[in-house]
Amino acid sequence: MSAQNLTLLTDLYELTMMQGYFETQENETVIFDMFFRENPNKGGYSIMAGLDQVIDYIKNLNFSYEDVDYLRGLGIFSEDFLHYLSGFHFSGDIYAIPEGSVIFPREPLIKVVAPIMEAQLVETAILTIINHQCLIATKASRVVHAAQGNGVMEFGLRRAQGPDAGLYGARAAIIGGCVGTSNVLAGEMFDVPVLGTHAHSWIMSFKDEYTAFKEYARLYPDACTLLVDTYDTLKSGVPNAIRVFTEMREAGIHPKSYGIRLDSGDLAYLSKKARKMLDDAGFTDAVIAASNDLDEFLINDLKIQGAEITSWGVGTNLITSKDCPSFGGVYKLAAIQNEKGEFVPKIKISENVEKITNPGNKTIYRIYDKETGKIRADLICFVGEEYDTSQDLLLFDPNATWKKTRLEGGTYTMKEILKPVFIRGECKYQSPSVTEIAEFCRQEKETLWEETKRLFNPHKVYVDLSQKLYDTKTALLNSVSI
Amino acid sequence: MSAQNLTLLTDLYELTMMQGYFETQENETVIFDMFFRENPNKGGYSIMAGLDQVIDYIKNLNFSYEDVDYLRGLGIFSEDFLHYLSGFHFSGDIYAIPEGSVIFPREPLIKVVAPIMEAQLVETAILTIINHQCLIATKASRVVHAAQGNGVMEFGLRRAQGPDAGLYGARAAIIGGCVGTSNVLAGEMFDVPVLGTHAHSWIMSFKDEYTAFKEYARLYPDACTLLVDTYDTLKSGVPNAIRVFTEMREAGIHPKSYGIRLDSGDLAYLSKKARKMLDDAGFTDAVIAASNDLDEFLINDLKIQGAEITSWGVGTNLITSKDCPSFGGVYKLAAIQNEKGEFVPKIKISENVEKITNPGNKTIYRIYDKETGKIRADLICFVGEEYDTSQDLLLFDPNATWKKTRLEGGTYTMKEILKPVFIRGECKYQSPSVTEIAEFCRQEKETLWEETKRLFNPHKVYVDLSQKLYDTKTALLNSVSI
Repeated sequence: MSAQNLTLLTDLYELTMMQGYFETQENETVIFDMFFRENPNKGGYSIMAGLDQVIDYIKNLNFSYEDVDYLRGLGIFSEDFLHYLSGFHFSGDIYAIPEGSVIFPREPLIKVVAPIMEAQLVETAILTIINHQCLIATKASRVVHAAQGNGVMEFGLRRAQGPDAGLYGARAAIIGGCVGTSNVLAGEMFDVPVLGTHAHSWIMSFKDEYTAFKEYARLYPDACTLLVDTYDTLKSGVPNAIRVFTEMREAGIHPKSYGIRLDSGDLAYLSKKARKMLDDAGFTDAVIAASNDLDEFLINDLKIQGAEITSWGVGTNLITSKDCPSFGGVYKLAAIQNEKGEFVPKIKISENVEKITNPGNKTIYRIYDKETGKIRADLICFVGEEYDTSQDLLLFDPNATWKKTRLEGGTYTMKEILKPVFIRGECKYQSPSVTEIAEFCRQEKETLWEETKRLFNPHKVYVDLSQKLYDTKTALLNSVSI
Repeated sequence: MSAQNLTLLTDLYELTMMQGYFETQENETVIFDMFFRENPNKGGYSIMAGLDQVIDYIKNLNFSYEDVDYLRGLGIFSEDFLHYLSGFHFSGDIYAIPEGSVIFPREPLIKVVAPIMEAQLVETAILTIINHQCLIATKASRVVHAAQGNGVMEFGLRRAQGPDAGLYGARAAIIGGCVGTSNVLAGEMFDVPVLGTHAHSWIMSFKDEYTAFKEYARLYPDACTLLVDTYDTLKSGVPNAIRVFTEMREAGIHPKSYGIRLDSGDLAYLSKKARKMLDDAGFTDAVIAASNDLDEFLINDLKIQGAEITSWGVGTNLITSKDCPSFGGVYKLAAIQNEKGEFVPKIKISENVEKITNPGNKTIYRIYDKETGKIRADLICFVGEEYDTSQDLLLFDPNATWKKTRLEGGTYTMKEILKPVFIRGECKYQSPSVTEIAEFCRQEKETLWEETKRLFNPHKVYVDLSQKLYDTKTALLNSVSI
């Protein structure tokens, strides 16, 4: 909001560890993976988002004079280390899955290959940015799925967790499939559609509802959605709206888009009654929009109940991902380069088994069914492992290794999905526009089976390990056990 | 994050309504109230926070050339209106409850008295800022309450909903009672304590855990908290920590603060075992800190189970208020000034009864028990209503009016809690520092009965209406009923 330079947007321990590496180590090149452990909302997939903001952050990394001075004042950093910080820039490599991609648990979304001091510093901000935008893009995708082709508008700025949450949440919501946002600054910054009409205060500032509607229709004849629940939806709001639409029709005004918005009461009942009233008056093309604490589950239910709503405004539950407000991405050390330039795999054990990491310098192949184009599985392997798609491929579940699938040679295709973003500190990646990312995301979701997009108890996409990676992991686990 | 000017951080409909008022109305002075309908997490109170950021926002309101140009490009605004915007500034009055105050549902936290075009524009940003910070300050207060006097650190930046959520969330967490934050930028911006030690990656970057601990202790002998769960807490982590502490003791080093941090496994069991191991080695003053998906309920339970933890690091659940991630504050028209300069009360009816508003130009008196200093009730009344505390005061529940309480004259005191912040566009309020606000909040919580601070099913503080306000509301409700 007021900070331009996000270099200090980090946990203190990143800096105390950096100084520790500075004092004790060779600043070896290491690999950190950012990954997540489960899809939000028990879903079948997630959506990658936030990479463009990570790129900005990395490009602008530098400790200002004021930053260094502030750190000096903490009394825990040496002058040598502060001097190092004042010349700091990021010199490493970053690989990432492009924004808008469908992503799955346990695969690296971002891989940082850099001297340990640099790789450690960027942990917190990368997590903050990616965790937030993946969360909201994924939630938006679920809500859009429930709306079955109807437009979903992002309306949540006032309930967002601060200005950035509103701004970058709107960005992520568009990536996830929303047709527009109410957030004007997001519209300006990301060149995405902004939408909105009026609030109850508009109605209340006129002597009566009819006058308020009439004036609104006069000012905005082309996009005239009237909010009908200020006094009484069916007795006052809808009749007054019909009166105004009738006057427009009689005056020869044919709006591009017009209709009503319901914002309280039982949306299924009210929309069916309102639809009949509008149809009876000849306004069969009037849109019925709805808002009021909607989410994917309520929209899904309203659809089942035959609600006559074809446009949805979703606020709080989308912009905060209310039923699952954190993405849970983590950033873990995977390898350290030795003197010979080889990456030595590292593993983190934990008393919580699901916290055990995948070691080594890895990449991800996405495997598609050749005929349908749908995803068969993702395969995490070491960089340099090669596959021949004319040969059979044996996949196995890394937790239940007796669960095996053999893909017949020639029936599948493979695509490496981690892309180079920074190489030796230079940005090598040009982000598409938000609108382009949204279109890419739409195509990505077509590679998912319907069973995976289901809101409840979806089919999980397999994320498997190569035999070599599995063997290395198992050997490391055995070697550190006590 | 990258936007300095938040003027366009608003919903599009605020601007379309502004243009509507511009075209159709006299730009009358109106009153909008910002209030909330229920405490988060079914709690007994909330904490006010975010006012200083609202002040910054209001002071800096102006449409830049680029902003006006962007709005022109939307094709829905007239040149006359755009010209008005390019000279826009806020000229009204704002009253607010000071940050750190305990607050209750349905009372105005912020009252905006301004020409309708100005009052409408500021709705969204005020809600975004206040909703977010009240939410996190309230959650922090609950977590701190559960910790029964132990220090609680805010550690959530990586799971915050974007950079601002981390920054202003840290600010709000300190107001709510946290002793520090891991967020370095928050420390720099708000002059609050920053805290932190090391992560698993520190341990993994050394040849073994003992070496990692030893080097850390050598570098940071004064605040040496060792993370003991990288390999095996009780078999490896705690014994290695004790070995390092023993070496420090033998070398004559007496750290100001030292101990261990548990970050996985069963925290009750592990902390009791670790306490015994540390005590047996003579380290009875070693601190046991804990983290790992903590919230007020888990801390409360761990306390009940006798966990030997005296320092708590709380991340995701605090910074996102995970079980209730939105505050739900709203901003509603309460009155319109007529030609005579009188404020005519306005009301919003709704099919959802709890959405009905309190009309008119109001203020709030907080009523304290004279003997204990505890809050008896809050009384919402019209500005100008006078009370004599030597007389009896009859309070009644506005929903169940037969529920009455008579306060005997001389046994209570009253304090008006809405303070002037802007008068005719000029800021008249100097925000205290965050540390001062946190201290004020601590004192504020002493005015609550213990029954109100309870985590589960707390006693609700009465928020009553004056007889005059109640009568006006009832009359308005009857007059608009159809």
